[in-house]
Amino acid sequence: MAKIVLISGSMNPNSTSKSILKRIGKVLDKQGHDTDVICVLETNFPLYHPLKPMTDEMQKVSKTIQSADAFVIGSPEYHGGYSGALKNLLDYQDGSGFMQKPVALVSSSGGMKAGINTLNSLRLIFRSLHAHVIPQQLAVCEKELNEKGELDEGVQKQLLTLVKGLLQEISLRYQSK
Amino acid sequence: MAKIVLISGSMNPNSTSKSILKRIGKVLDKQGHDTDVICVLETNFPLYHPLKPMTDEMQKVSKTIQSADAFVIGSPEYHGGYSGALKNLLDYQDGSGFMQKPVALVSSSGGMKAGINTLNSLRLIFRSLHAHVIPQQLAVCEKELNEKGELDEGVQKQLLTLVKGLLQEISLRYQSK
Repeated sequence: MAKIVLISGSMNPNSTSKSILKRIGKVLDKQGHDTDVICVLETNFPLYHPLKPMTDEMQKVSKTIQSADAFVIGSPEYHGGYSGALKNLLDYQDGSGFMQKPVALVSSSGGMKAGINTLNSLRLIFRSLHAHVIPQQLAVCEKELNEKGELDEGVQKQLLTLVKGLLQEISLRYQSK
Repeated sequence: MAKIVLISGSMNPNSTSKSILKRIGKVLDKQGHDTDVICVLETNFPLYHPLKPMTDEMQKVSKTIQSADAFVIGSPEYHGGYSGALKNLLDYQDGSGFMQKPVALVSSSGGMKAGINTLNSLRLIFRSLHAHVIPQQLAVCEKELNEKGELDEGVQKQLLTLVKGLLQEISLRYQSK
């Protein structure tokens, strides 16, 4: 059993990326893993100020990150990149919490081709944080949702491929544990 | 004479990227241009929430952006990317304020090779905002500052090349004005 922390970078209560993360969380829970969600809408941190000390609440979030074996990171795409809110939360972290841990990336956006720049930019961020970002990723656009806002069959398959890829990476990295 | 808005993405009062922007502003002022500075440390917007209306202060910043002929954007590099604070400010903009306008990019960071991922990611953001990002850019690392925190000779030359490139782009795009 692994502890997997899902981080949602959307401030929208009706966020698509968050609903995808929740779905991934359910799949992981069913397989017996321990999941936890950090959502920027709930933490709602002020803008990161490098000279101001972290509050207890900020430190609690960092401890949750430190305690994780792996991550799933989700962000809406705004103007060709991840949300400022998600990066702001990451700006508070010193990097040790992600070090050598598997990370899976998810984005959602309106445009058919959007989401990819967000995923590419997030890949650079987590490389910089010395995480192992898995090659599988999930970029979901509005046209891949049905009238009820549910994922179409193709995306559901991709979601399960992402989860499988993350669990394989976890298994590989923690096999000596 | 052009109106050039400089946007600082640092929350640090002793920010290197902001001091570089100030220097660029002085060069532009000397050449008779009208410069204005937007600094995330001063605007200090809450995290962008797509369902909440903008305040008067937020609209004022958008109007300043709308009124500009061109931009210089500066950001520190945190974890391989632009600051969350800068992206948060950009998340509030609908894009029309940057449309078809010249943009010059500046980053500063501790590492010798850092700053480049920030500039590349910002280039994607401003492409998405349909701005014309000039090929010249400025990535400054700590080793290029002297004991007083001033830029070394090489970087000063690059700074002037950046300014020249921006003014040429402005001249080209607004020659029919």
